[in-house]
Amino acid sequence: MTAWSGDAKGSLGAAPGVELDEIASMPSGPGRVWLTCIDYSPGEVLIQEIEDLPDFLSRHRPGWSCVRWINVAGLSDMGVIHALATKYEIHPLAVEDVLHVPQRPKVEPYGGEESEWRARLFILLRMLRLEGEVLRGEQVSIFLGHKTVLTFQETRNDAWEPIRQRLTTKGSRLRNNDASFLAYSLLDVVVDHCFPILEHYGDRLEDLEALILERTRYNASGDIHQIKRDLLQMRRIAWPMRDVVSALQRETHECLSETTRIYLRDLYDHVIQIIEVIETYREMSSDLTDTYMSSVSNGMNEIMKVLTVIGTIFIPLTFLAGVYGMNFRHFPELSQAWAYPAFWGVCMLVAGTMLWFFRRRNWL
Amino acid sequence: MTAWSGDAKGSLGAAPGVELDEIASMPSGPGRVWLTCIDYSPGEVLIQEIEDLPDFLSRHRPGWSCVRWINVAGLSDMGVIHALATKYEIHPLAVEDVLHVPQRPKVEPYGGEESEWRARLFILLRMLRLEGEVLRGEQVSIFLGHKTVLTFQETRNDAWEPIRQRLTTKGSRLRNNDASFLAYSLLDVVVDHCFPILEHYGDRLEDLEALILERTRYNASGDIHQIKRDLLQMRRIAWPMRDVVSALQRETHECLSETTRIYLRDLYDHVIQIIEVIETYREMSSDLTDTYMSSVSNGMNEIMKVLTVIGTIFIPLTFLAGVYGMNFRHFPELSQAWAYPAFWGVCMLVAGTMLWFFRRRNWL
Amino acid sequence: MTAWSGDAKGSLGAAPGVELDEIASMPSGPGRVWLTCIDYSPGEVLIQEIEDLPDFLSRHRPGWSCVRWINVAGLSDMGVIHALATKYEIHPLAVEDVLHVPQRPKVEPYGGEESEWRARLFILLRMLRLEGEVLRGEQVSIFLGHKTVLTFQETRNDAWEPIRQRLTTKGSRLRNNDASFLAYSLLDVVVDHCFPILEHYGDRLEDLEALILERTRYNASGDIHQIKRDLLQMRRIAWPMRDVVSALQRETHECLSETTRIYLRDLYDHVIQIIEVIETYREMSSDLTDTYMSSVSNGMNEIMKVLTVIGTIFIPLTFLAGVYGMNFRHFPELSQAWAYPAFWGVCMLVAGTMLWFFRRRNWL
Amino acid sequence: MTAWSGDAKGSLGAAPGVELDEIASMPSGPGRVWLTCIDYSPGEVLIQEIEDLPDFLSRHRPGWSCVRWINVAGLSDMGVIHALATKYEIHPLAVEDVLHVPQRPKVEPYGGEESEWRARLFILLRMLRLEGEVLRGEQVSIFLGHKTVLTFQETRNDAWEPIRQRLTTKGSRLRNNDASFLAYSLLDVVVDHCFPILEHYGDRLEDLEALILERTRYNASGDIHQIKRDLLQMRRIAWPMRDVVSALQRETHECLSETTRIYLRDLYDHVIQIIEVIETYREMSSDLTDTYMSSVSNGMNEIMKVLTVIGTIFIPLTFLAGVYGMNFRHFPELSQAWAYPAFWGVCMLVAGTMLWFFRRRNWL
Amino acid sequence: MTAWSGDAKGSLGAAPGVELDEIASMPSGPGRVWLTCIDYSPGEVLIQEIEDLPDFLSRHRPGWSCVRWINVAGLSDMGVIHALATKYEIHPLAVEDVLHVPQRPKVEPYGGEESEWRARLFILLRMLRLEGEVLRGEQVSIFLGHKTVLTFQETRNDAWEPIRQRLTTKGSRLRNNDASFLAYSLLDVVVDHCFPILEHYGDRLEDLEALILERTRYNASGDIHQIKRDLLQMRRIAWPMRDVVSALQRETHECLSETTRIYLRDLYDHVIQIIEVIETYREMSSDLTDTYMSSVSNGMNEIMKVLTVIGTIFIPLTFLAGVYGMNFRHFPELSQAWAYPAFWGVCMLVAGTMLWFFRRRNWL
Repeated sequence: MTAWSGDAKGSLGAAPGVELDEIASMPSGPGRVWLTCIDYSPGEVLIQEIEDLPDFLSRHRPGWSCVRWINVAGLSDMGVIHALATKYEIHPLAVEDVLHVPQRPKVEPYGGEESEWRARLFILLRMLRLEGEVLRGEQVSIFLGHKTVLTFQETRNDAWEPIRQRLTTKGSRLRNNDASFLAYSLLDVVVDHCFPILEHYGDRLEDLEALILERTRYNASGDIHQIKRDLLQMRRIAWPMRDVVSALQRETHECLSETTRIYLRDLYDHVIQIIEVIETYREMSSDLTDTYMSSVSNGMNEIMKVLTVIGTIFIPLTFLAGVYGMNFRHFPELSQAWAYPAFWGVCMLVAGTMLWFFRRRNWL
Repeated sequence: MTAWSGDAKGSLGAAPGVELDEIASMPSGPGRVWLTCIDYSPGEVLIQEIEDLPDFLSRHRPGWSCVRWINVAGLSDMGVIHALATKYEIHPLAVEDVLHVPQRPKVEPYGGEESEWRARLFILLRMLRLEGEVLRGEQVSIFLGHKTVLTFQETRNDAWEPIRQRLTTKGSRLRNNDASFLAYSLLDVVVDHCFPILEHYGDRLEDLEALILERTRYNASGDIHQIKRDLLQMRRIAWPMRDVVSALQRETHECLSETTRIYLRDLYDHVIQIIEVIETYREMSSDLTDTYMSSVSNGMNEIMKVLTVIGTIFIPLTFLAGVYGMNFRHFPELSQAWAYPAFWGVCMLVAGTMLWFFRRRNWL
Repeated sequence: MTAWSGDAKGSLGAAPGVELDEIASMPSGPGRVWLTCIDYSPGEVLIQEIEDLPDFLSRHRPGWSCVRWINVAGLSDMGVIHALATKYEIHPLAVEDVLHVPQRPKVEPYGGEESEWRARLFILLRMLRLEGEVLRGEQVSIFLGHKTVLTFQETRNDAWEPIRQRLTTKGSRLRNNDASFLAYSLLDVVVDHCFPILEHYGDRLEDLEALILERTRYNASGDIHQIKRDLLQMRRIAWPMRDVVSALQRETHECLSETTRIYLRDLYDHVIQIIEVIETYREMSSDLTDTYMSSVSNGMNEIMKVLTVIGTIFIPLTFLAGVYGMNFRHFPELSQAWAYPAFWGVCMLVAGTMLWFFRRRNWL
Repeated sequence: MTAWSGDAKGSLGAAPGVELDEIASMPSGPGRVWLTCIDYSPGEVLIQEIEDLPDFLSRHRPGWSCVRWINVAGLSDMGVIHALATKYEIHPLAVEDVLHVPQRPKVEPYGGEESEWRARLFILLRMLRLEGEVLRGEQVSIFLGHKTVLTFQETRNDAWEPIRQRLTTKGSRLRNNDASFLAYSLLDVVVDHCFPILEHYGDRLEDLEALILERTRYNASGDIHQIKRDLLQMRRIAWPMRDVVSALQRETHECLSETTRIYLRDLYDHVIQIIEVIETYREMSSDLTDTYMSSVSNGMNEIMKVLTVIGTIFIPLTFLAGVYGMNFRHFPELSQAWAYPAFWGVCMLVAGTMLWFFRRRNWL
Repeated sequence: MTAWSGDAKGSLGAAPGVELDEIASMPSGPGRVWLTCIDYSPGEVLIQEIEDLPDFLSRHRPGWSCVRWINVAGLSDMGVIHALATKYEIHPLAVEDVLHVPQRPKVEPYGGEESEWRARLFILLRMLRLEGEVLRGEQVSIFLGHKTVLTFQETRNDAWEPIRQRLTTKGSRLRNNDASFLAYSLLDVVVDHCFPILEHYGDRLEDLEALILERTRYNASGDIHQIKRDLLQMRRIAWPMRDVVSALQRETHECLSETTRIYLRDLYDHVIQIIEVIETYREMSSDLTDTYMSSVSNGMNEIMKVLTVIGTIFIPLTFLAGVYGMNFRHFPELSQAWAYPAFWGVCMLVAGTMLWFFRRRNWL
């Protein structure tokens, strides 16, 4: 339950923009921060786990390095945020967005030629993750410069692992391209992360559908409700993601190469596909609710009907038995020898007539 | 109930536009009016509670003052409105909108270079407030000039308190920026006021969901109905607010600085987030209604079923007991010694067969 | 019922356009026609009830007259229509629209500089009116020329009364402005007429909501249905009205002054507000239907449940009483002294167990 | 049922475009074809029933003829289609559309100045018709040239009768205008044909509403379903018709005169009105379904309630009677003189208490 | 069930783009690949089944050949894909889309004058097929060059058979046109394949409607659910197909001739018609669900009512019989001679009164 409600609560009363000075004075939270720096060029690659950030920042990057990618996993250490924000001149509003999770996925250009700030493309996304049956979203912030990519994750996880492996593979397309292609690859990882999750919900819908249509008296309303709620949450993330990729693909920016733009077209198709699957699943859940309700009321009615028919047949018979249990002194039938067998005959006649009547009107 | 219906009633037959002369002749209502004037510059700040308005207006503002912000809390004193409208040359239609609450949130430019009126940006918003469980909206009008901001509130409250505190803090971004940044900050306060309210409704939806899924026979239809109605009211305010922020961000106006425009981009994101949360909550309420209805009918049917099954088992048995209570004189079974135990045997057989039948068809 | 269905029937097979010659030959219907002419300028005003139209049309208007407004109440006298259409050169299609009520609200420019026709703005609206509980719409046609406004009403009523009063008030904004401002004021009257009607429906919705939530077994389905139908009808009128005001505000026309255009912006806000209230009420009616249905089925089920529980408790007891009413000769229990009290003990035990069981499963 | 399903089946696997040579070789179907040619100018008019088409086509049109209108009723004779398509140079795709009914209403310009084909405007519509209670659609194809109008109908009917009469009336607007005005008039006939049909459905909705609200146990679900289905079919025809008229009105084409364009504006209003009525009726049908369902379940529940109350009152009484019908030997009450009257007293007490209880809880 | 869920699962974690080198190293799947090459010009045609691809690719095409169409049925042999992708310079992203089925239908231009790649139009579609009652989609990829068309199918089937026949027919429009017309014809086949499938669903809807309205107690909820699900899947394919045809028709591309563009207009109409039929069927299914539910609950209620009425009549009578079965010693009625006949009289009176009451209130 907390997964979706948390989304709305995060940024309450957030002060607009965080100044570099303010960051330094903000209290650092608990938990560690992991920093990784990868420098690469078509020919070489160097992966460093950064322990001493100030020292690291004071040194120059290797001369052969075409792209430097610094990944920050964990947002608790304000000193780290401050040092990086200062070094890479990040706009206060962007710093605020990185720190106040959750934000809506968005892309924002900062700076540029005629601005005081250096040209940066700030991309903010949410990566979906299934923990058991609970859907969680984790914020991923990407700052794209000309030769630098800076990424922030909420927690340390292995989402970037495939990217790292492709970076260490000589001759891979990633190694041969520029920083914007790395950013595209990171986006691609975030987007493609949705597919197994969608698959999971597709399977659950299939299972529910089978359960409902086979009528095994399974109470599906809670399950359908949960799927609907999770799909709603996914949709709230997928639609702005579409806007992000669409904006990246449409608008030119000095940090985005032409090659990357062609690949973004492909990514856009993936996002559209995700949205369409979500919408399709949502409509399927609605249809499933209808089918479930009609199935429940159908099965229920059938039960009630058979039961009521049985009851109705016996009601007149019980009346009849009651009649001949009366103690009137002057009661001609009671003394007849044929009375008792006749009673059974009448009972069978009545029951038979009612059964025939019910069957003729298709009630049985 | 009155919260939303009041919205529609306010501006019935409002005469279009209020002339300055007319204001003076309009009857003042009951209730006090509080006027506060804050002059500030990066270096200095002066807060005045204005008691004698004509005297105040006759004096010039201090030479060091970069921005003057006059806040009017309470709309009952027509003399005050008239004096300010005259002094700051407010368009009759804008005065009308300030006085006839509630209005739809909107932004309207008045005047400008080639007009007879001075350039003003008139922004009208509604600030949401929860009083206990009742949702209320209060109108906030902002007039933005080059170096002046004029605000009108319906009642005196502490909504502007954080702004005042930031104004008295030397070196704050607010102090170092122009009048449009102050207007932006006021808008930000109004918009961010929605988040705790949304959080409140999110919590109520969570609670209701838990109640419904745990099936504690709680009658949730009234609660869901009230949430739906309140969300409807919030939506009616949030959508035009989006238009207001979007218009401010998109269209250039001589009173809006470039810095403010960048910050408005952030505000726009907040409004979009609010709208998305509202829409999500609305869909969740609908899903919750469905789940509630299906849950109610499910639980109900289960009860009815068990009860009917019990009834149905005893109906044939009662008939049988009635049969052997009949007083026929010629009644062979009655005189048999084995008859009474046999009766119980038949009863158990019939009940057992029915139970087996019901269980096999999954009715129990 | 006839209110809305009438809307669709009016213009069946209407011949496209009515020539001036044709008008003369069309049969005049029953009922009188009232003609009023008001000439005014900032300094003077003259109100005439026109009895002899040809005589009136042959005379010139007073030299001081800035604006002449001729109002026609009643569409039955074809001679009047013909005379005015000839005098003021009205396009056949416009004449057709005036005569064939009801039409969809619309605005149409006719003529202009390079056309053979004189520049005219033809505005067609529907004014809503509540007659008891029945919603009625009356067509209002406005022809706006440079210095002339020609209006047609279906019946004589006092809708224009406030306008006439403001015209007779020296120094009013209406007197000091041109013909287009008069047209705007008429539009404003028509639009603002919707607010009390909306208020009426808001009150009815409030009352219904209170009735339903308090569960006073009131059958609300007919009422909700009627409100929905009336709101549907209002929406059908409000949306095209929005288009009309939006078109007037957006497109320039030689007959529309710049001042009027600013006031139209205000009118546009009113129409939007009306539409939003209608849509909100429509959603509220839908939510109310849901709440009503769930409330009905809730209350119903509660009744049925208690009743069924009572029945179920007595069914086994009745069976037991039936057993000991049987007439078997060999019936050991019957002759025991403790049998009768024991019977009552068993009855109480069974009833108690069932009550406990029902209570434990929350069925009571 | 076949009315709407037929719509989808018509054009299965239609080969794209029909060459003139292919037409000649296509098999002619059964059924006659009626050809009528009308030549007219403001001064003269000539109506011919064409029996021998080749002969007719070889002759020149009269010199005075401003517009020639050839109407083909029936599509079975391929020789006729071939001769006309050859003579008037109709594009293969247009011929295909004429022959493969049903098509979606559309307008398509063919040819023009820099094309090999002569300028033609091809307009394809569906004319609605009620046959008893069954809604039928008939395809009407109109080819508009500079001085020629060619129309194809599926069957011979009197839809064009009013047009023919106005053509024979000297001085009518139709006679005095060009070919595009004739095309407009034909469109107008097709569009205005919808109004009486809509009126029919409006009446049926009114009747159903009255039946449902008066609660005369009428089973309305089948009727509402049929109305919904028919309105769906009408909508499928009305929306593309809107596109057709809108396109004609918006885009200039050398065959369309300026006068006609003004009249098309009026026609557009009619189509919009039709669409709005259809949408309103659709929403009314949905509301009616809700009202019907709630009315049914309301009435039902009331019946069940009263019946169950009656049953519940007698259940304890029957138990009591059963108790005193028991044959225990030691049964103190049985021998008391006051027992029987007391039994009736208890019965009345129990029944009275229950009735009071039910009434107090508003169940009766 | 697998038909639609499979759609979402296909492209999970697909690496972006497949390099030519990578293809060669990808493992070939099981199953054969069929290659067919057709060269044609207005005068000549040559159909070849290609067995030895490298040999085939090394040879030049015949000099008379205007268009070469190579069709690949089966995607398992990576060697074939690699050879063709190398020969015809296909972009890696396009190769990926061909191999990773299912993709969303799309059209993408690659290369062109100022690009390093040759101009290609890549069109990806899904062809629908009914296998028994199961709806399947098969991916069709079309690469259109200036004189070459390259198509990939998932399996070998006879979908292209009509195209092949028209290619072998001398003088056919296909033979006389260019490569883009061939591509259009292939698109036309894919699109028109939808019509018989739609017809199938139309028939099923008709049958279901008849079953439901005739009330033959048929459980339609599963059937309606399946139809809704299949229509949802078709819609997911039809909407992007519309975008594809619309893009082809709108945007110019050097490979698309003007003639083809006119024919695409016709194809666009077909796609729109398909979408409209799908949407109409979807609304019909929804209406059908409503009608089914109301029909079920109607029939159900009728049964319950009659049964309850019967029960209710007998309940007081059974009570009465029970009364006179009591064994009170002092029981005046029992000894009266008229008591037994009077009992029957009272029974008939009570039953008659209740029947009259029920009938009067329309419950029977």
